[in-house]
Amino acid sequence: MSILADLTDVNQIKSLDIDQLRQLAVELRDEILTTVTKNGGHLASNLGAVELTIALAVVFDFPKDKVIFDVGHQCYAYKLLTDRRDRFSTLRLKGGISGFPKRSESIYDTYDTGHSGTAISAGAGIALARDIKGEDFNVISVVGDASLTNGVSLEAINDIGSRKTKQIIILNDNTMSISKNVGAMSYKLDKLRQYDGYKHIKNEVASFVDGISSENGKNQILRRFKNAIKYTLMGGAAFEEYGLRYFGPVNGHDISQLIDYMRMAKSSDEPVLLHIVTVKGKGCIEAEERPQDYHGVSPKINKLDTPTYSKTLGSALSDLADVDDRVVAITAAMKDGTGLAEFYERHPDRFIDVGITEEHAVVLSAGLATQSLKPYFVVYSSFLQRGFDQLLIDVSMQKLPVRFCIDRSGVVGDDGETHQGIYDLSYLSIIPDFTVLSPINTTQLYQMITWSKDFDSPLAIRYPRGNISLDVSTSFEYGRYDYLLGDTDADTVVLSVGAYTTHEAYNAVSQLIQEGKNISLVSCPTVFPLNTEFLDKLNTKNIITIEDNVRSGGFGQSVQSYISSQSIQATVRCLSIPDTFLPNATAEELYAEIGLDCEGIYKKLYKMIE
Amino acid sequence: MSILADLTDVNQIKSLDIDQLRQLAVELRDEILTTVTKNGGHLASNLGAVELTIALAVVFDFPKDKVIFDVGHQCYAYKLLTDRRDRFSTLRLKGGISGFPKRSESIYDTYDTGHSGTAISAGAGIALARDIKGEDFNVISVVGDASLTNGVSLEAINDIGSRKTKQIIILNDNTMSISKNVGAMSYKLDKLRQYDGYKHIKNEVASFVDGISSENGKNQILRRFKNAIKYTLMGGAAFEEYGLRYFGPVNGHDISQLIDYMRMAKSSDEPVLLHIVTVKGKGCIEAEERPQDYHGVSPKINKLDTPTYSKTLGSALSDLADVDDRVVAITAAMKDGTGLAEFYERHPDRFIDVGITEEHAVVLSAGLATQSLKPYFVVYSSFLQRGFDQLLIDVSMQKLPVRFCIDRSGVVGDDGETHQGIYDLSYLSIIPDFTVLSPINTTQLYQMITWSKDFDSPLAIRYPRGNISLDVSTSFEYGRYDYLLGDTDADTVVLSVGAYTTHEAYNAVSQLIQEGKNISLVSCPTVFPLNTEFLDKLNTKNIITIEDNVRSGGFGQSVQSYISSQSIQATVRCLSIPDTFLPNATAEELYAEIGLDCEGIYKKLYKMIE
Repeated sequence: MSILADLTDVNQIKSLDIDQLRQLAVELRDEILTTVTKNGGHLASNLGAVELTIALAVVFDFPKDKVIFDVGHQCYAYKLLTDRRDRFSTLRLKGGISGFPKRSESIYDTYDTGHSGTAISAGAGIALARDIKGEDFNVISVVGDASLTNGVSLEAINDIGSRKTKQIIILNDNTMSISKNVGAMSYKLDKLRQYDGYKHIKNEVASFVDGISSENGKNQILRRFKNAIKYTLMGGAAFEEYGLRYFGPVNGHDISQLIDYMRMAKSSDEPVLLHIVTVKGKGCIEAEERPQDYHGVSPKINKLDTPTYSKTLGSALSDLADVDDRVVAITAAMKDGTGLAEFYERHPDRFIDVGITEEHAVVLSAGLATQSLKPYFVVYSSFLQRGFDQLLIDVSMQKLPVRFCIDRSGVVGDDGETHQGIYDLSYLSIIPDFTVLSPINTTQLYQMITWSKDFDSPLAIRYPRGNISLDVSTSFEYGRYDYLLGDTDADTVVLSVGAYTTHEAYNAVSQLIQEGKNISLVSCPTVFPLNTEFLDKLNTKNIITIEDNVRSGGFGQSVQSYISSQSIQATVRCLSIPDTFLPNATAEELYAEIGLDCEGIYKKLYKMIE
Repeated sequence: MSILADLTDVNQIKSLDIDQLRQLAVELRDEILTTVTKNGGHLASNLGAVELTIALAVVFDFPKDKVIFDVGHQCYAYKLLTDRRDRFSTLRLKGGISGFPKRSESIYDTYDTGHSGTAISAGAGIALARDIKGEDFNVISVVGDASLTNGVSLEAINDIGSRKTKQIIILNDNTMSISKNVGAMSYKLDKLRQYDGYKHIKNEVASFVDGISSENGKNQILRRFKNAIKYTLMGGAAFEEYGLRYFGPVNGHDISQLIDYMRMAKSSDEPVLLHIVTVKGKGCIEAEERPQDYHGVSPKINKLDTPTYSKTLGSALSDLADVDDRVVAITAAMKDGTGLAEFYERHPDRFIDVGITEEHAVVLSAGLATQSLKPYFVVYSSFLQRGFDQLLIDVSMQKLPVRFCIDRSGVVGDDGETHQGIYDLSYLSIIPDFTVLSPINTTQLYQMITWSKDFDSPLAIRYPRGNISLDVSTSFEYGRYDYLLGDTDADTVVLSVGAYTTHEAYNAVSQLIQEGKNISLVSCPTVFPLNTEFLDKLNTKNIITIEDNVRSGGFGQSVQSYISSQSIQATVRCLSIPDTFLPNATAEELYAEIGLDCEGIYKKLYKMIE
């Protein structure tokens, strides 16, 4: 007897009674647990949002009403309830449904998310469009507490509060973001959560004030008085200051209460913030107790016998900080994911977590560098996109030696389009005087961090997720290219960038050499600036570049441009990630699909050297 | 008898009495007015900040204490008081001092600014560095009210409020940003400004509450009561919610009061926000009355006999909105600068000003586009850098037909490094499926806007400041390249992008043709995607590209890469802006300096076709 299986349309949920809705919650949790355990995915946040999603479906009419999930990693129950149940077992698999909302996947998905903080802005746009067109539907943005500290969220809240467009924000407050939540907003939410009896207190105080107001005649003061009380005691002062009506806090696992409050929010003609308190990982004891470990779950048990790049970074940076008291580590709410947990343990006084605020993190790092500290901002490649202007204006223009340790470079897989680190070489290549390094194994990453100690201009070191490492002995010297295979006077030279791609290229070129081809493989751990001295001396007509970045603005294009401008008589061809977006699948599958695995590289090189 | 002239060190100001300080304010205003009238610059904001700057110099010790001016266009008095008085007449001139703070210019400048919202973040970094190093100095961020709505500011306020690092924020509230201020923060500040007698009210209420608190014993409630009153009546609730101590509002033109309050702020060990209300343009009647016209002053009277690109955009978009009720215009506090004032007059219901929030503006536009409206976000090139991640993730990834009208592309001049629009082709070229257009005259801009009506994927139309327009008859057809000069089978073909560069190239190539050279000039108003059909058919070995963008990731590099990948036997050489930053000077001077004026282009082409 599955209630979930019997639902052929999300709106049938409206006819279920409360016991059936509770049963539905159990079934949704089962489905989510089963699939995530198999496929990987965001477990804790999705388990926490089950009742919230059920209440949404009871109160609103989808797809007429529009819901936008911020970041999007809490949309699994929504996908199961709308039209993705039969495909849910394909979650995050190659060719399967995405772990994030996707307009291309379903009419129930209103807006694609993936990076923090966009749901309120997008909702504002959708609500404005509704009003301009004279249509009538509800717009609901579901936002986690950590996303509220993000600049895009804050910009949007400030804007919609003044415009008074009808729009509902559901603050899904699970009292933690990926790492511990950070910032004043977090403190404020902590205070709000304590006001469970706020309604009682409010009434008591209000009647008390009413009683004395006529006696002393200070009506104006008392009106302010009452507002002040209402704000502070109701707890929503901060949001009401922003021009939003505030409801809450509500127990986010009590379906009846959620339905009541959502109906209240729905009936308001102004922008509303409904504050829901949920437990991340709800319904799964392990996930409730250690939600940070269950934020993103890998599909199988991690059998890594060598440390990951993230782990190596954490150790290398901690070791560096041992010998240099100017080293400071900065993270934007990614202490665990970036490997900085070790740094936090060993150097807590020089560890700065600013919350999910990449722009602020870059500027703050620049500020640290003006005082001759050595800031290392450790950040995922796709999230650093948020700081592009600051990389240019604050860091490069001031020639400040801020270090960027860019994790999750190249194809990341699993999380799909929004999380791929395949644009970083391109956007960094635009920025004047930015040095970009990319190791081929974890040992070289360690060497680069050690080397970076006294480098005195803007620096980025980018490396992939996982631990794929070419098993060759490496050393790092700034600017040097390294022959890994073949002769220096080979007919064809392959210039390679990126740990994964170099690993695969190594095997492909090895095989070609075994087959008697006259080809060499050169690793270019200093990606930018180009080693033009090397290129000038290169005595070959056939240059092929390989990289784990898109073509436009990447390493290969730079080499092409340089060779072309020097009128060197050589052909340069580029193997790169195509100029497009990559959907969810494993990194291995994606590299294979785009022909950048060993086999694909072998085939392409074979053809090119014919 | 000039007090200003007698100051050989900024700290001598501490020995002046109040009358002398007032006299100093008059002298500073005179100097600013004189120079700005001659050289151009930001008049209103600088006149408004004179007393504030004097008080800073009385209370703090520069350069030991560090002041960071947000955006930086209120730093003239500071430059005059520190070590730039003798060079002040060179303000914004070629080789002269910058209109913005520049660390390279003076030890008194702590942090280079130019784009909104970075001063609090940078200050946070500097304050953290101070504490990590165990040093002792004050950090003061001077921020305008409009900058407070910016995401970077809000991220930073949220962060520092929780960290409790000693840092002073001076909110220079001049009740307007460049356009009318927007957002809930603005409304909030309006409310605060009304509380001139807040101290009086506060005391009255506090004693009243004290009187009754013992009677009913509800001590806990009454404590909250009092806090609530204090917050609301003192007006700083919003900031104190963020964990900042709030002082103010203070009359920002009363030097004594400013000094008192700054001393209070200085003595606090926590982060402090001091709220100062100033009059933009203070001391110059015209500027006080119409500060928006005096925000940025051009050095001479504008003798443009043809409309600017901005003006053309405003008309074209308004005309389009006449015939298409789905057209919506969005600006980030730049209604006047972007030419959207006309649109606002003609279509106020479809005009959206979101304040200085470029990230939010891009996402909101994407939201509008999901509802099949036609959003046109009109924005300066250098400010759109703030929205890079959103261009990629929200617009391009969702294939949403958001239109970006990018003003101030190419060399902008005057405002210097931070405002140059010389990176947009590069950062847009990275983004998959983004179409980029660049007209050669205002007529073609109008044609592009008309044409864009039914274009259904992400689109950018970029055009320069001013009105430089090549006087040739144009039409616009998507993707088409246009021969402007020379034969289709010329030995050398020049592919040109950008209004300024094409204008200069036209004159240069005309001259070369007159001299009998076999060369042609082709305008490429569709910059991306490349017209590969045209390139494939091109029957020449000598291709030269010209553009008003940096080399890395620009048009020329794309052409080089394409030609190279097709193994077409042709040499491609690029004339572009060098991969660097351009200081202040006029656009004409800068184009001449980098050899992209007519003479420079002539010389380079002459050499290349020898």
